[in-house]
Amino acid sequence: MNLDYPKRVQIGEEGPREGFQIESAAISVASKVRFIEALADTGLQDIQTVSFVNPARVPSMADAEIVANALRPRSGVHYTASWLNLKGLERALATPLHVKPRLSLSASESFERSNTGKGPAQAAEEQRRMLAYCRDKGLAINAAIIMTAFGCNLEGAISPQRVCEVVAELVKLMDDAGEKLEYLRVADTVGWATPLAIARVVGAIRERWPELRLGLHLHDTRGTGLANAAMGLSMGVADFDSSCAGLGGCPFAGNTGAAGNICTEDFVFMCHEMGIETGVNLEALIECAHMAEAIVGHPLPGKLLRSGSLARHRA
Amino acid sequence: MNLDYPKRVQIGEEGPREGFQIESAAISVASKVRFIEALADTGLQDIQTVSFVNPARVPSMADAEIVANALRPRSGVHYTASWLNLKGLERALATPLHVKPRLSLSASESFERSNTGKGPAQAAEEQRRMLAYCRDKGLAINAAIIMTAFGCNLEGAISPQRVCEVVAELVKLMDDAGEKLEYLRVADTVGWATPLAIARVVGAIRERWPELRLGLHLHDTRGTGLANAAMGLSMGVADFDSSCAGLGGCPFAGNTGAAGNICTEDFVFMCHEMGIETGVNLEALIECAHMAEAIVGHPLPGKLLRSGSLARHRA
Repeated sequence: MNLDYPKRVQIGEEGPREGFQIESAAISVASKVRFIEALADTGLQDIQTVSFVNPARVPSMADAEIVANALRPRSGVHYTASWLNLKGLERALATPLHVKPRLSLSASESFERSNTGKGPAQAAEEQRRMLAYCRDKGLAINAAIIMTAFGCNLEGAISPQRVCEVVAELVKLMDDAGEKLEYLRVADTVGWATPLAIARVVGAIRERWPELRLGLHLHDTRGTGLANAAMGLSMGVADFDSSCAGLGGCPFAGNTGAAGNICTEDFVFMCHEMGIETGVNLEALIECAHMAEAIVGHPLPGKLLRSGSLARHRA
Repeated sequence: MNLDYPKRVQIGEEGPREGFQIESAAISVASKVRFIEALADTGLQDIQTVSFVNPARVPSMADAEIVANALRPRSGVHYTASWLNLKGLERALATPLHVKPRLSLSASESFERSNTGKGPAQAAEEQRRMLAYCRDKGLAINAAIIMTAFGCNLEGAISPQRVCEVVAELVKLMDDAGEKLEYLRVADTVGWATPLAIARVVGAIRERWPELRLGLHLHDTRGTGLANAAMGLSMGVADFDSSCAGLGGCPFAGNTGAAGNICTEDFVFMCHEMGIETGVNLEALIECAHMAEAIVGHPLPGKLLRSGSLARHRA
C-alpha cells in the first residue's frame, strides 16, 4: 500500500451554516453565536457561520447579518459565510465576516438548474460577473468548488471525464479574468461517492492539473463519508469540509435528501489516531457536538457523541 | 494507488445475534425468526442467529434453542451461532444450526479476563479442550478469531507485533492438534481501528502468514467502520462480518461501550458501487433493516435506512 497521508489537514467547519440552515428558524441568535464561538475555542480556524440567501426561502437564515455582527473577531480564526449570487456576496461584504469568494459550478446541469435556476451558459456568465465584481472590489479570488462531482439525484452518475470538463471551464474562467485557480473543492453534494470514486476523480484531476490544491466536501448520506475522506487522505488530500456532530441533515426526521457533511469530531478522531494533525482539541470539540444536540433538540448522527474518544482508555 | 479490491466478498451477518443479545428480552421468537428468514431471502448465506450463553447473564438469549429449532433449513444458507465455552458449543450441536467451531483468543489479556474470566494460560488451555472436543466429535476446525486486535478499553493500544504473537499462538494450537489454521477473523471488538491500523495489522499478518485467509470483524463505535472496511477491501480482504441496520449497539440509548458492527446494507451499498459483488439484494436488505427497527422499537444507526440506495436516481 502506498499511503501518502498528509502531516496536517485544514478543516472547513460547516456545522453552523449547514446545520442551522435546515433546522427550525426558532433557534436563537444567542445559541448560534455561543456555538460558533465554542467551535473557535477548539482550534478550528475556518468556520462557516451563515448563508446570505433569500429569507423567504430559508427563514432560518433571516438573522444572518445579526449573527455575523454578534461574533467577536478572533485572531487566527476566519468566520466565513456562503451565498448563491452576487446579491448574497454583497450582503456578506457588508458584515465583519471573512469573505472568500470562489467560483462554483455543478458537474450536473440538472442540479445547477435546480440549485441556481441557471443553465450551463447562464451559470458560466454568473461566474464571469462574480470575477468582474471581485476585480472591481479588489477582492482576491483563487478558489472554486465543483458540486455533484460524483453523482446527482436528478441526473445520475457523473464521470471523472465530466468532472474534468467542468474543472477545465473553471480554469478557463479564471484565466480569462487574469486570475489563477489554485484551490479546488470537489463536492459530493448528495452522497454518491465511494472510496473508489474518490480515487478516480482525484486521480483524474491531479493528472491534468498537478499543481491544483484539491479539497473534499463530503456528505455522509450513505455511510461512506469517512471512508471517502480516508481515501482522500491516503492520496495526500489535506483540505476537508466537515460539520460538528454531523449537523446538516435531519436523518432522524425522515429528511432523506439532506444528510449532513462528514462529522468533524469523528474525522478529527480518525486523523489524530493516524498521526495526522488538525490543530483541534478533540475533547472540546465533542463538547461542542453535545451543545449542538442540545440546541437543535434532536439526536445528531456523530458517533463520538455517544462513544467518546479513546483518551480515557489510554490514561 | 494500488487498489487490490476483491471481485466478491463473503458477508457474515451478525445482526440477529449481535442485536437481539443486547436488546430487551421481550422480543418474541416469532419476530426473531421472521427477521432471520427475511435476511436469508436477501441472499445472505451466513447468518449468525443466536448465542448459547448463560441465560441468567443474557436473558435475551434464553430462547436460543427455540429460535434455532424454529428456523426452516434452507439450501445454501448457513444459520450459525456463537458460544463462549464448550458447554455453549454442546448446546449448539444439539440444534439443527450449522456449527462452525473456531478458536478464539484476545490480543488483550485484560479483555480476555473480562470476557471469559481466563488468564492467558487458561485461555490457551480452553482452546486445547475445544480442539480435543472437536476431534472427538469429528468436527472440522480450521478457523480462529482474534479479539481486540486494534485496542482495548481496559488495556489501551495493541501493537501489530502483539497481534502477530497471538496469531502465532493460534497457529501453534492448531498445529499441535494436527489441524491447520486457514481462516482468521481479525476483530476490532471495541472500535479502536483506523484505516492506517488496518493496513498495519493486515500487512503484518500477511507478511508472516501469506496463505492465511483474513477476514475483518469491525465495530463502528467511532464512525470509522466503513473506512476500515474500505482499507481492508483495498488490500484484497474478502471476508467481513456486519450487522443489518447496524444492530448490536444502542447508540441512541446512551450505551456507549457496545456500538454495533458495521451496517450490512451500508457495506453492501459501498461494495456494489465499487463493482464488488456480494450476492445480496440490496433493496430487500434495506427492507430487513426497516423490519429490524420496527422489532427493536428505536432508531438504528444504518444510513441507507434513511437515504435509500441510488437505484431510484438511476432508473
